[in-house]
Amino acid sequence: MNSTIELLQSHRSIRKFSEKPIDQSVVNQLVNCGQCAATSSNVQAVTVIQIHETETRHKLAELAGGQPYVASCGAFLVYCADLNRPKFACQQQGGEFAPGMTEHFIIATVDVALAAQNTVVAAESLGLGICYIGGLRNNPAAVSALLDLPDQVYPVFGLCLGYPDQDPEVKPRMPLDAVLMHEHYDSGVFDSNVNAYDETVRDYYLTRTGGNKDSSWSQEMKALVGKESRPHMDGFLKERGFLLK
Amino acid sequence: MNSTIELLQSHRSIRKFSEKPIDQSVVNQLVNCGQCAATSSNVQAVTVIQIHETETRHKLAELAGGQPYVASCGAFLVYCADLNRPKFACQQQGGEFAPGMTEHFIIATVDVALAAQNTVVAAESLGLGICYIGGLRNNPAAVSALLDLPDQVYPVFGLCLGYPDQDPEVKPRMPLDAVLMHEHYDSGVFDSNVNAYDETVRDYYLTRTGGNKDSSWSQEMKALVGKESRPHMDGFLKERGFLLK
Repeated sequence: MNSTIELLQSHRSIRKFSEKPIDQSVVNQLVNCGQCAATSSNVQAVTVIQIHETETRHKLAELAGGQPYVASCGAFLVYCADLNRPKFACQQQGGEFAPGMTEHFIIATVDVALAAQNTVVAAESLGLGICYIGGLRNNPAAVSALLDLPDQVYPVFGLCLGYPDQDPEVKPRMPLDAVLMHEHYDSGVFDSNVNAYDETVRDYYLTRTGGNKDSSWSQEMKALVGKESRPHMDGFLKERGFLLK
Repeated sequence: MNSTIELLQSHRSIRKFSEKPIDQSVVNQLVNCGQCAATSSNVQAVTVIQIHETETRHKLAELAGGQPYVASCGAFLVYCADLNRPKFACQQQGGEFAPGMTEHFIIATVDVALAAQNTVVAAESLGLGICYIGGLRNNPAAVSALLDLPDQVYPVFGLCLGYPDQDPEVKPRMPLDAVLMHEHYDSGVFDSNVNAYDETVRDYYLTRTGGNKDSSWSQEMKALVGKESRPHMDGFLKERGFLLK
């Protein structure tokens, strides 16, 4: 155990921020920490768009399904998977860009997540709180239009940064035995671990909501993967030049 | 600046490891740090398979395109995007799993990358070195067969962990101005920044290889995105129940 590990283990999302602003030099440093993460073949397929304008922030908060902290947080970053920059470099060398490869989509999406998570760890090490905003994928076409994203670029998620004005509990996770397997995949570990975790999650929600939310992890998963989710994503991504082959 | 930020900024991949073993308790703690990362709707779509057996390690090293450190590192982890566990939970609740949603594929792939990066940061904070192994996607069907991965699970990458037996330089990254944009996407920043970075990368390779490697970032990008890359991925993923709609 050390202070970095302690920091990682104390993560929880923050959705209420104080009005204390974040210096731009800090935001720059945080994004730079993101750049220092590993990147597949050094492609660095990440573009971060920082949104300062109040009106744009409010539009994005709305597009994300009504998440007011997108507007009220100290800094809001849109993380884009960006194959347009390597395409530019390729063409500058006289190459012909190979569009729509699923492999390139994976590379770019993973690059974005690795970079963002480094930025998150750096932010939390400075006492900032964070919240990922997957809700930008509710209407990725509108987000793309608002931010002038070209083809070969898509908004993966947003990131709220700010000084916390709340101190929520850390959310309990799945038992390690259901997540870390050895030698082979073994779905035999699910039964007892998922059942145990269902009760942990139920207790967590009951305590946190004063008895108002009574739900298990399995119930939440039924709601999440037991129905279609953002069914526009496939068509949207294909239109933007991704996932064509 | 603090020690965590310093740690993040000093990352470089390690491909030569000492024989010092890693305690299993340490590996468990590192994977737990990964679990503490944010996860979309708490889906925790990550399964980590630790490979201990020498023979399997050698097979994976081979499948990854001949990367001997997959076999020689202290611990080797295969990071899988796993919708099979939430599917199990959904079905346990009497729900019907909605297969093949591109949105679920993104959620699971991002979850894996966030978790892995937390594990990487924790590992480096303990003095361990790491190397991501995207090469597992060279032949994901063979990797899946070797590890008994069921449908709704795919190997995103591997991760080598171990005590470093080399001390390579930190690789320079793209200028921040080409990566952090404001309000809108602006490809106007590419020209000067990419040209400057091309020279930085050329110098880095020349110095590092004693003059043997003479290449710029743009040249590397032409080689990467100027041709099809792992063209089997699309078909493989569809066969495993991903990216169907």
